[in-house]
Amino acid sequence: MPTRRFDAPGDPALSDLHGDLAERDLQPLWELSGLLTPTPRARAVPYRWRGKELRELGGRAGDLVPVDRGGNRRVLSLSNPELGGGPYASAPLWGALQYLGPREAAPAHRHTPAALRFVLEGEGVWTMVNGDPLRMAAGDLVLTPSWTWHEHHSPGDAPMTWFDALDLPLVEALEAVFFEPGPEPAAQSADPARSASERRFGAGPGLLPGKRPTRPTAHSPLLRHRWADTDRALASQFTVPDAETSATGHAHVRFADPTSGRDVMPTMRCEMHRYMPGHSAPALRCTGSSLTAVFHGAGFVVLDGTRYDIAPGDLIAVPSWTSVTVVAEESLDLFTVSDAPVLEALSLYREEAATDSVEITPAR
Amino acid sequence: MPTRRFDAPGDPALSDLHGDLAERDLQPLWELSGLLTPTPRARAVPYRWRGKELRELGGRAGDLVPVDRGGNRRVLSLSNPELGGGPYASAPLWGALQYLGPREAAPAHRHTPAALRFVLEGEGVWTMVNGDPLRMAAGDLVLTPSWTWHEHHSPGDAPMTWFDALDLPLVEALEAVFFEPGPEPAAQSADPARSASERRFGAGPGLLPGKRPTRPTAHSPLLRHRWADTDRALASQFTVPDAETSATGHAHVRFADPTSGRDVMPTMRCEMHRYMPGHSAPALRCTGSSLTAVFHGAGFVVLDGTRYDIAPGDLIAVPSWTSVTVVAEESLDLFTVSDAPVLEALSLYREEAATDSVEITPAR
Amino acid sequence: MPTRRFDAPGDPALSDLHGDLAERDLQPLWELSGLLTPTPRARAVPYRWRGKELRELGGRAGDLVPVDRGGNRRVLSLSNPELGGGPYASAPLWGALQYLGPREAAPAHRHTPAALRFVLEGEGVWTMVNGDPLRMAAGDLVLTPSWTWHEHHSPGDAPMTWFDALDLPLVEALEAVFFEPGPEPAAQSADPARSASERRFGAGPGLLPGKRPTRPTAHSPLLRHRWADTDRALASQFTVPDAETSATGHAHVRFADPTSGRDVMPTMRCEMHRYMPGHSAPALRCTGSSLTAVFHGAGFVVLDGTRYDIAPGDLIAVPSWTSVTVVAEESLDLFTVSDAPVLEALSLYREEAATDSVEITPAR
Amino acid sequence: MPTRRFDAPGDPALSDLHGDLAERDLQPLWELSGLLTPTPRARAVPYRWRGKELRELGGRAGDLVPVDRGGNRRVLSLSNPELGGGPYASAPLWGALQYLGPREAAPAHRHTPAALRFVLEGEGVWTMVNGDPLRMAAGDLVLTPSWTWHEHHSPGDAPMTWFDALDLPLVEALEAVFFEPGPEPAAQSADPARSASERRFGAGPGLLPGKRPTRPTAHSPLLRHRWADTDRALASQFTVPDAETSATGHAHVRFADPTSGRDVMPTMRCEMHRYMPGHSAPALRCTGSSLTAVFHGAGFVVLDGTRYDIAPGDLIAVPSWTSVTVVAEESLDLFTVSDAPVLEALSLYREEAATDSVEITPAR
Repeated sequence: MPTRRFDAPGDPALSDLHGDLAERDLQPLWELSGLLTPTPRARAVPYRWRGKELRELGGRAGDLVPVDRGGNRRVLSLSNPELGGGPYASAPLWGALQYLGPREAAPAHRHTPAALRFVLEGEGVWTMVNGDPLRMAAGDLVLTPSWTWHEHHSPGDAPMTWFDALDLPLVEALEAVFFEPGPEPAAQSADPARSASERRFGAGPGLLPGKRPTRPTAHSPLLRHRWADTDRALASQFTVPDAETSATGHAHVRFADPTSGRDVMPTMRCEMHRYMPGHSAPALRCTGSSLTAVFHGAGFVVLDGTRYDIAPGDLIAVPSWTSVTVVAEESLDLFTVSDAPVLEALSLYREEAATDSVEITPAR
Repeated sequence: MPTRRFDAPGDPALSDLHGDLAERDLQPLWELSGLLTPTPRARAVPYRWRGKELRELGGRAGDLVPVDRGGNRRVLSLSNPELGGGPYASAPLWGALQYLGPREAAPAHRHTPAALRFVLEGEGVWTMVNGDPLRMAAGDLVLTPSWTWHEHHSPGDAPMTWFDALDLPLVEALEAVFFEPGPEPAAQSADPARSASERRFGAGPGLLPGKRPTRPTAHSPLLRHRWADTDRALASQFTVPDAETSATGHAHVRFADPTSGRDVMPTMRCEMHRYMPGHSAPALRCTGSSLTAVFHGAGFVVLDGTRYDIAPGDLIAVPSWTSVTVVAEESLDLFTVSDAPVLEALSLYREEAATDSVEITPAR
Repeated sequence: MPTRRFDAPGDPALSDLHGDLAERDLQPLWELSGLLTPTPRARAVPYRWRGKELRELGGRAGDLVPVDRGGNRRVLSLSNPELGGGPYASAPLWGALQYLGPREAAPAHRHTPAALRFVLEGEGVWTMVNGDPLRMAAGDLVLTPSWTWHEHHSPGDAPMTWFDALDLPLVEALEAVFFEPGPEPAAQSADPARSASERRFGAGPGLLPGKRPTRPTAHSPLLRHRWADTDRALASQFTVPDAETSATGHAHVRFADPTSGRDVMPTMRCEMHRYMPGHSAPALRCTGSSLTAVFHGAGFVVLDGTRYDIAPGDLIAVPSWTSVTVVAEESLDLFTVSDAPVLEALSLYREEAATDSVEITPAR
Repeated sequence: MPTRRFDAPGDPALSDLHGDLAERDLQPLWELSGLLTPTPRARAVPYRWRGKELRELGGRAGDLVPVDRGGNRRVLSLSNPELGGGPYASAPLWGALQYLGPREAAPAHRHTPAALRFVLEGEGVWTMVNGDPLRMAAGDLVLTPSWTWHEHHSPGDAPMTWFDALDLPLVEALEAVFFEPGPEPAAQSADPARSASERRFGAGPGLLPGKRPTRPTAHSPLLRHRWADTDRALASQFTVPDAETSATGHAHVRFADPTSGRDVMPTMRCEMHRYMPGHSAPALRCTGSSLTAVFHGAGFVVLDGTRYDIAPGDLIAVPSWTSVTVVAEESLDLFTVSDAPVLEALSLYREEAATDSVEITPAR
């Protein structure tokens, strides 16, 4: 938010006016500065949380904190240091590591902020969305769209962690948060071998149920994307003859609603990127912010000129209009979630090559 | 088209008027009848061509007729007996059996009528669409959309036949047929192991290339649907808990453009139906016509009260507003193509339960 | 429809095959010709009906034929001479002159073919559409969309004629004609001063009822376009600084659904053109056909090289892919209706400059 | 933004964990509260600024402050008392009174936040948008959509004030603000008698230029809505037979893009409401916030149980999920702008009758 310029001159009539305006809850534009900036001003800063530390801290939380404590989820939320101490990873996005111990369950609730889970490692937990159990394993993407009931179950012997992303800060900024706790107790038995969602919409590309729903939902009806499919889609792109993908060393898949081709949820775009070793491309910046979870590989990213080495499990916040370069030292698989659908829907999306000379500072 | 009523009365002034109108290429409405019917009047009749005969006649054509004769395709077109002797299966749709012998090729051309191929048996042929080779095997659906270059190649030792459907009669009725012969000679070598189309759009459900095309096409970019996927999609529907599919014994998949969820081409809807033995449902009728190819199984259909036994390879024409019942004696897999997208786009689609008492006549 | 080539060669096996195919209602592609043409083959021919003759014949019909005779409308339908003697103006479109005498009424009915009325002269009749009375006066466009009840009333002392256009041939070709006669007797009293449709949707540009309908219709809810508005819209285009309109001498308005900007009905595009004297432009051709009603002015059109002089009340049929040039000798106002929305919806619309040298034959 | 619960228990291991988390810019969910609320929590409060005071303060600003001071606009911005002292009327919306003196000009600039002007009284100023001069008079709505150049000119002898609304807080929250100052000096002469925008798109309802733009804009091409049209549209609604409008005493027009029927800009809905004296309706609440400018009439609104008397020129902020009742004592005309299109695009729009018993407190 802009700050007021207190350059009140000596004119007593003007001082009186300023006083009367303040009393009436009005502000003179001529006393304000910084309202309109040449390019976007992001409140958050580029930031990286290390996977190694997240895992270690998640494990300690698993030992010390019962799952049913505040919030009913054992969650470490990313707190961007420039966002005023709040628990938000960037201005529109919440990011977190969630940890579920053996035979634990996180009970049902629903809320208008939409959520997604990208599994960084392990398997065995399943998430129930509106009564449909969805298996979670490394590389899977599981959606819990706005206002769907959801609960997490770990029937096995090993703990499991995953990356959570929500549009909570955005929905809070739009003053549209609704929350409802679920019925107790949650079911601990279900067969997530394949969900109804996947049986209906996940059998293959371009195959939809013949009977169309009377009222389509705002989100994708396919609530789980399996890593095997995503991996194959990325690998396939590199084998298309004469494709740009091969030339650039960058394959790139967008998770889509199979009934519409739109993003899986109206507020968040989910993508998987694969960068071949040696990949290099000009720096880019765009409006909107994103969170990246490093799934496989090693390399570094350069964010507004600062280099960050990355390794599996790292989580990265990229605020709006940050210049981004990705360099793969080993084949890199990166999951990203962004608010791009919001900016596109409102016709506020822009991107450009970051032509300013990028001088990379030493690695952090 | 309506016929004129020649009930000219005795009034000589009226006779004069009628004569003058005819001379001016005008017709008096009061002398016309049959213009507007309470329900649709189809010109074509329900009809079934037997697969056994089609195969036998296709083989004889393969022996006697070179592929490069008139039309550059060895094709037996379905001629609905009530369509005035023309080669059309129904008012809007062309259906045919195409036969390609060992080491033959059908050279490239393109036309605004869209075409599709559903493979009834065999494998080995590949179809090149705009330079992209697409493998054809039993149960596969291959698209050659409007104005795409296409050619067929049989590098192997066995002949192969498939079902062709085109919207040619519709596009002719709309007076929008364009045709262009292709360059000679056509390539005889390509690797259709997996097409660029499938590599980009066929890796899995809900996975799209990250980079969006600058100008989306009017048709699906996924030009081949493999039988393995279709079969799995049908089978999956029967395993969804409490699904209507299980109750009715009818699974039903619509082939869709993965980038939009729309039909694969703007003029033709493609679907695959599986009916469990004992399936029974009330007769239905809808506007628009369809062609059905029997892929697997045995049973019969009842079309406007007449029973037709069906077996693999049979082709069936169902004109607009024909009452249809399907009865499976063995598990039935039926491929259908219809002009439903046209009727929907123009807001002319209607369907209803055929409540009139259906008295089934003896099987033909 | 294509014709068969009867070039049966001497080979008796081939003759046998051809005989067996015919018996099975199959046709060999190699015996067919003319299926696919390089450019569209229109069945109808370019044609002009003279307004002077239409008025004279309409008047005689008014004297001789009661309105409630066959079809319940006193209508002279345009019969394109190459359409096999049927009452259709072009392949997809019905055009006609309708005549209603003083104190006559054409009773209510509805049908899936959509209709529109463009008033060539006079005033005083009103058309009731689904209970809403719509005033008709010279230059007005009144819609009676698919499956809406409609009836015409002439409470005054003067007869009135107007131009009717329907998509009847198209809907018949799609085998989707439904018809229902209305309840008797029709109301003879209503106040068409301004219809509910116009009160809700016609107050001004870009102004919609705040409460949105629960189920939008496939057609425009604004059922009447007044000439005063259309005239002003055309005139305005000529006054835009530096506009192409002024340079070319051609203003051009499309009648649109104010709630969507789409064409007023899914099957027919309605437009009004104004050509300044001396207007000249390169000949154009496009897929799809149109009917033109000359409202004001004088000049000529050149259709596939043949010149037709035009005067108020003339009706002109332009088949698909006909080269069209319009030359205004006096300021020309032309109303046109076409099936362009159909061709666009099905991705079959094409247009091009008719570059072939146009040698204009003497005027007909 | 939520606050942290500092209820650290005595467990030293837990304290250590909390410390380590803070050091790593992570926050434990179990220490946070207030993240998810049962219903939306608005930061702004319902508020009313009095037109009488706005006019008086605007006049004093006109006397004391040159227009080219900070921001190049003489603007008094509404500062909602609960928004932390910033110049925003509600969380997503900026509202302000703008004052332009005789023969003054506010020079050109452009910015991604979209703006609109609703004229409360007077006339004579014109706003140039991308080179097109738009007349401003009482009751007119003038749009300056995202990233369009705009400047204001007052060629006359009287000062003029109007209501400005921008989506600036929203675009700032989305971190998508771009700004560019315009070229100097601005033109002081142009003929806003009727703008090119109005000549092309404003001639009448349902009339669009025949030639469609190659690239449609995200905003309406009709940049000015004249009060005469709006007034007629409201009045017309009351005359529709049997209409709900008459029963409720509430007419309601939405300003729309004539080429699409969508809201005039992707982020702001503009509406005009007319309430007949004695209007009463149940209280409603919805997600999203709005600003209201009182154009004509007298009465009061009840916002979350508090009554505010209203008079011409008053400006009212209604935060998300505030219960709203409007009571007209004289016929009331209210202009409203809201972020409803944003909530709808993101599938976050909800509304409900405010069933809680509303006890109205004494008028403020």
